[in-house]
Amino acid sequence: MDGNVFHSWSAQDLIDPIDVVSGSGATFQDRAGKSYLDFAAQLVNLNLGHQHPRLIQAIHEQADKLSTIAPAFHNDTRSQLASLIVDAVGENYGSVFFTNGGADANENAVRMARGYTGRQKVMSTYRSYHGATTTAITLTGDPRRWNNEPGDGGVVHFFGPYCYRSPFWATTEQEECERALKHLEDQIILEGANTIAAIILETVVGTNGILVPPEGYLPGVRALCDKYGIVYIADEVMAGFGRTGELFAYQNFDVTPDLITFAKGVNSGYVPLGGVILSREIQKTWSTTPYNGGLTYSGHPLACAPGVATFEVFKEEKILEHVKDLGERVVRPRLEAIRDKYDIVGEVRGLGLFWAIEFVKDKQTREPLVAFNASGADAAPITQFSAYCKEHGVWPFVHGNRAHITPPLIITEDELNRGLDVYEEAIASLAA
Amino acid sequence: MDGNVFHSWSAQDLIDPIDVVSGSGATFQDRAGKSYLDFAAQLVNLNLGHQHPRLIQAIHEQADKLSTIAPAFHNDTRSQLASLIVDAVGENYGSVFFTNGGADANENAVRMARGYTGRQKVMSTYRSYHGATTTAITLTGDPRRWNNEPGDGGVVHFFGPYCYRSPFWATTEQEECERALKHLEDQIILEGANTIAAIILETVVGTNGILVPPEGYLPGVRALCDKYGIVYIADEVMAGFGRTGELFAYQNFDVTPDLITFAKGVNSGYVPLGGVILSREIQKTWSTTPYNGGLTYSGHPLACAPGVATFEVFKEEKILEHVKDLGERVVRPRLEAIRDKYDIVGEVRGLGLFWAIEFVKDKQTREPLVAFNASGADAAPITQFSAYCKEHGVWPFVHGNRAHITPPLIITEDELNRGLDVYEEAIASLAA
Repeated sequence: MDGNVFHSWSAQDLIDPIDVVSGSGATFQDRAGKSYLDFAAQLVNLNLGHQHPRLIQAIHEQADKLSTIAPAFHNDTRSQLASLIVDAVGENYGSVFFTNGGADANENAVRMARGYTGRQKVMSTYRSYHGATTTAITLTGDPRRWNNEPGDGGVVHFFGPYCYRSPFWATTEQEECERALKHLEDQIILEGANTIAAIILETVVGTNGILVPPEGYLPGVRALCDKYGIVYIADEVMAGFGRTGELFAYQNFDVTPDLITFAKGVNSGYVPLGGVILSREIQKTWSTTPYNGGLTYSGHPLACAPGVATFEVFKEEKILEHVKDLGERVVRPRLEAIRDKYDIVGEVRGLGLFWAIEFVKDKQTREPLVAFNASGADAAPITQFSAYCKEHGVWPFVHGNRAHITPPLIITEDELNRGLDVYEEAIASLAA
Repeated sequence: MDGNVFHSWSAQDLIDPIDVVSGSGATFQDRAGKSYLDFAAQLVNLNLGHQHPRLIQAIHEQADKLSTIAPAFHNDTRSQLASLIVDAVGENYGSVFFTNGGADANENAVRMARGYTGRQKVMSTYRSYHGATTTAITLTGDPRRWNNEPGDGGVVHFFGPYCYRSPFWATTEQEECERALKHLEDQIILEGANTIAAIILETVVGTNGILVPPEGYLPGVRALCDKYGIVYIADEVMAGFGRTGELFAYQNFDVTPDLITFAKGVNSGYVPLGGVILSREIQKTWSTTPYNGGLTYSGHPLACAPGVATFEVFKEEKILEHVKDLGERVVRPRLEAIRDKYDIVGEVRGLGLFWAIEFVKDKQTREPLVAFNASGADAAPITQFSAYCKEHGVWPFVHGNRAHITPPLIITEDELNRGLDVYEEAIASLAA
């Protein structure tokens, strides 16, 4: 136990959490004075790093001005952030519905899709995470759903593309794309196209593997949605706000979603905030009919203020350019070299500052080094990797048989290389 | 439309929100300089009023120290707030699971009850509100659920006590209590007691009528829960943190819930925060088994800091004493006089600074002045009441055929009387 604090996703008697007392940029410190390079950006939310002075200043200013006001009122800061977001995604979109985080953003996106279409069913992929409230956890395609079933009875899962472990016996990226779309259309038809309100996709799958979709897949999904009158929801909670080198990950691909959900990077999680961006078309559903959802803290001014500052920092510090540059010039070649050097590295993949290293027992069979959903002794290799990194001052993100590289986007090249050095040493130690 | 901001529970083209620029204590101001006495405490969350200097100071200090850190770490401010909360509810309770608001607090309480009992079904009352994520809105017993069905398939609604409009043909409070308990037990038996994980109750029903339970009802529910192995969840999102004159409303009654949910008043909503207080018994379920829920911002330090300050202010400013005093010495006699004076006032009821005035067409038949779930022209009388108050500088809380009195708890006696003056003038104008 951590005193009287009950921890997320944890066995309470088995935890012994590190006492973090401060943070700055890409690093944080524990009470003993040990410093960690944050290769996880906490839960992939701290896009502008720890204690960015501009975001902290925005919080101070808003706290002095007006910390909170009910959603029914007009508030300048809230309106400013909504306009910045809508401007960034273009004329297809009309407004932003603010929530407290990613889970309720996805809950509301589903509510909107159901309201707009008059249909109930929502399709989401296996190997996905969409949050932990009832509909969000039912959408989720990973083991965190299992103990929360049956949940929302209107959710159906399908297989998305995963080139390295193709569920479609594909051997090329193009084949994976074509077969994934064929599979999806078959399933839409068998589920009954006119019963399906929405398809929700993490644009780049996050915690479940940093799965970058093959070229053509997302436009193909868009075409299916158009063909069958289905709403396309892009879950950009983890991939959005610069993680992939574009403000929203879908902007890397030739696709226009109907609804876009976000949280985390919108204000680096300095204050809880999430939201849904609505297309003008869908928004019209509630022009003269009341929207059937809401929350006390929708558009919370103190949360929106560091969101506004986030847009300023992205521009002034050229965050997107920095992410693209580091991703392609530093991360990709280093990870590819690591993959080529170590037998236990099966694949590396990613975009921007959003990368995965997948560990295998055997490069030929691709058998995972840690079995799906393994824990305890069965997960020993990944635990060993993690322990090595922490011991050497790098806070890693590990999940299943993978290590992820998801640092704050403001990480310097030197820091990034230092973190990758430690990741490589940990891999070498694991390989030995 | 309010620019690019999509509003909660609203028809977007029909709103014209007031632009609020500042607030202090029990009042807030719009851009034109007009001041409103906040008789709603926004959405009954601003328990310590607008811009309380101690809460703002706590935000400043935490923002400078460490705005956020992931839930998996130890954080002093988070731990301090959890301890203050657990200390305030006594030795039956062991820990606090923090969420972003009331909806996800209730979602997690239900998850805990299901995990603890291994049962699925949850019972909640008609005339209740529990939030707007899928399970929370399904628990909700008011029209906001209707357009969100089917939702969580494991929810069953029952009738709670409502002395003024008894669903049990009772004529005294004692009879209402006995019959409500008989009705509940009958329904438990017919639903199958061993299929029911939890009963969730707003300790004092909030938005749906400020329904103070008759003496003996909550202990009676507790006894039924004990008899059938059902978890008792007290939803204290609106009633908690001093609203009724006790820190938690259940402390007015002779009852010990298993799980207590809170949000709003915990930090007056200055930063989004909610949570579940777990009994030691239920907490044990996840001693060595991982809890099947979580969220990125659980135990957010910037949200917990004004929560810690809230406990200090409650003590130093003797908030609970102030609330009890104003409630019994000022509000009750004034409302009872209003009830006796005006034919359109059928009943007044409440506790602390949590009161309702129920308007009727006829005092004998008790026919509501505005029909259930009426809107537009059908709701004209309550709209007229509301408009009068706003015009005269009081921001009211109205719902259905009722006006509520739920100001910030720091309201002065003079302010309270001024607000009640305007409420009475509005009633007189309505009666005329």
